[in-house]
Amino acid sequence: MSWVEGAAGSPYGTHNLPYGVFRHAGRAPRIGVRVADFVLDLDGAEAAELILAGGALRRPVLNEFMALGRAQWAAVRERIVVLLTDPGHRAAVEPLLVPLAEVELVLPFEVGDYVDFYSSEHHASNVGQILRPGQPPLLPNWRHLPIGYHGRAGTVVVSGTPVARPRGQRRGSDGPVFGPSARLDIEAEVGFVVGIPSPLGARVPVAKLAQYVFGVVLVNDWSARDIQAWEYQPLGPFLGKSFATSVSPWVVPLDALAGAWVPAPPQDPPVLDYLRDVPHLGLDLRLAVDWNGTRVSEPPFASMYWTPAQQLAHLTVNGAALRTGDLYASGTVSGPARGQVGSFLELTWGGTEPVTLADGTTRTFLVDGDTVVISATAAGPDGTTVGLGEVAGTVLPAEPD
Amino acid sequence: MSWVEGAAGSPYGTHNLPYGVFRHAGRAPRIGVRVADFVLDLDGAEAAELILAGGALRRPVLNEFMALGRAQWAAVRERIVVLLTDPGHRAAVEPLLVPLAEVELVLPFEVGDYVDFYSSEHHASNVGQILRPGQPPLLPNWRHLPIGYHGRAGTVVVSGTPVARPRGQRRGSDGPVFGPSARLDIEAEVGFVVGIPSPLGARVPVAKLAQYVFGVVLVNDWSARDIQAWEYQPLGPFLGKSFATSVSPWVVPLDALAGAWVPAPPQDPPVLDYLRDVPHLGLDLRLAVDWNGTRVSEPPFASMYWTPAQQLAHLTVNGAALRTGDLYASGTVSGPARGQVGSFLELTWGGTEPVTLADGTTRTFLVDGDTVVISATAAGPDGTTVGLGEVAGTVLPAEPD
Repeated sequence: MSWVEGAAGSPYGTHNLPYGVFRHAGRAPRIGVRVADFVLDLDGAEAAELILAGGALRRPVLNEFMALGRAQWAAVRERIVVLLTDPGHRAAVEPLLVPLAEVELVLPFEVGDYVDFYSSEHHASNVGQILRPGQPPLLPNWRHLPIGYHGRAGTVVVSGTPVARPRGQRRGSDGPVFGPSARLDIEAEVGFVVGIPSPLGARVPVAKLAQYVFGVVLVNDWSARDIQAWEYQPLGPFLGKSFATSVSPWVVPLDALAGAWVPAPPQDPPVLDYLRDVPHLGLDLRLAVDWNGTRVSEPPFASMYWTPAQQLAHLTVNGAALRTGDLYASGTVSGPARGQVGSFLELTWGGTEPVTLADGTTRTFLVDGDTVVISATAAGPDGTTVGLGEVAGTVLPAEPD
Repeated sequence: MSWVEGAAGSPYGTHNLPYGVFRHAGRAPRIGVRVADFVLDLDGAEAAELILAGGALRRPVLNEFMALGRAQWAAVRERIVVLLTDPGHRAAVEPLLVPLAEVELVLPFEVGDYVDFYSSEHHASNVGQILRPGQPPLLPNWRHLPIGYHGRAGTVVVSGTPVARPRGQRRGSDGPVFGPSARLDIEAEVGFVVGIPSPLGARVPVAKLAQYVFGVVLVNDWSARDIQAWEYQPLGPFLGKSFATSVSPWVVPLDALAGAWVPAPPQDPPVLDYLRDVPHLGLDLRLAVDWNGTRVSEPPFASMYWTPAQQLAHLTVNGAALRTGDLYASGTVSGPARGQVGSFLELTWGGTEPVTLADGTTRTFLVDGDTVVISATAAGPDGTTVGLGEVAGTVLPAEPD
């Protein structure tokens, strides 16, 4: 039982403890951990020797801490729980709690490589039907490997960063035209943050997920569908995605999600050996998408065809090295129903079926000024809920020429 | 006239002065500049106050120096020329010259994002004919924009790093099979290294190339054609490329290539405004590909359809930020003739026309133990030659299971 006000019953109680980086009172960014509606200043806690992590908590990003590995992650987590529950520590720790409302949250880790998968069968199949009507919705490779590509790591931004509408080329009736994207969309995803690196040439087997992955963030992979449609053949998405990718400010440790693993959907045909994870488990994270405050979708992460362990094994099967801070995202999370899709392309079926928001206005793709908030929760131990925070962004008009 | 032995007439005289990072005598990596067959220790030179760069030359990578911008690059370059030509400096500078043969060259910069273009018309057209026979060799978008995608920055390695044959899925007669790639290939490319960053939302116009780009490296974008062919639809190359990308150890300053600009091939249809570079110039770099010591190809960089300035303008037109250390490569450099292609896929026309090496053996794709060296030169001032060094790599057998 935590002595922190509001911790009992909070989705951010001591069963969760996500890590982030915050600014407060004009100071440089510091590592903190969220508990209830406070941030525990871990830089201060390590400075005061309340926690020992070799100085890794006294940095402006999580990378050095994430590189310490699972044993240290567990030890620090355990120590934080002691500090927040043992009344004997209250006098020393309470001054290190900062009200969440007073902090600015910044990008919590330096991103190594950013990989984006495409692992929802419902999403891939919806997109196939919308973009290639009359053809088989899934390409022949889709059930054999988790399709993925590299995105732009340098434009991963923290939740709350405004997103200017990108400009670019799109197909016109008489050759390409240039201008602001007319089909700006979201992709609601879940991202996995790599803690310990792996050397070039080594493979990370499916069973080693928890050794390498530090935690989970929510991702909005903003997508300009018209730019993407014109540019993507034959080398994949580029400028249609690279203008911004937003992530939630809190990295939820994999340990906090221990109770959220559920059997993943069966895979048919059987996968190749290096992708066989036994047990075959996914995370039961319940996402929600709010468009200007109207809940338009509730994508179920448990419905993903390819699991995080399979994605990591695939990513490294060719010997590609991992670096601390590598981020790999799931791809758009879409369930089988229209109210469960993770993109507006699907929600409005290619822009042909507008949705009506609570204020009575209708939408197909994003309008300047629109705000999208993606949030998620999972089941925690003993009937608790684990909050994954949210990733929010507001669309600004395209920059002037 | 330099007092350094061998500088006169060398492609690495004081008209070139490429930057790198070297290890010597068991010390930590240091920044150096090549002159003739020596490396001038710039860390030592700044420590001795022979050059002043605010400490940026006393780092283990070039990034901080590259972030200083064009005026500082020019000032340091000018100062190095003075140090290496004025006999009055010889006594102080000579002890800082290390024989090239005694150093180990390491990756000279920390790579931000790695983008790979596809800007040779001959290459794109050859690949189209080989992979999609009977269809138009170029896709409809190809002449309207420089097609590109993001590669894996974390597996960019320095010349000389052995490359283990990647394993992965490839198409089989009865579903995919798993194993070492049977069609391991190279791509001879030229890479541009970004010096100063640009903020999110800003565009870098074609005219600003020299403000942002610090210098040039040679790139071998190793490619497993069988893995790539099976995985690449619809999101582009992933594991077929991400196992390794090799770069030359010397970053040749753009200033050293001032005499190598030539009119680029005319573009038809006309490009959109943001891609219009006047004058429309490419770099006349003459590449060479040696396969186990046999010269198999001499790709002419001057034949590229899209120019470096157009690539940079395209990369940022959607507002994507640049970071110091971003690397963008040209895509495979192929000229119109068979002896000018930058990949073995083209050289052996999809593996159907083997080449014979000097030792009498024949090749289609790479065999374990093969070594490939890509080198280049350009015309310098006053009849000199500018050497761009080389990017070399030897193929190792696939890692055991």
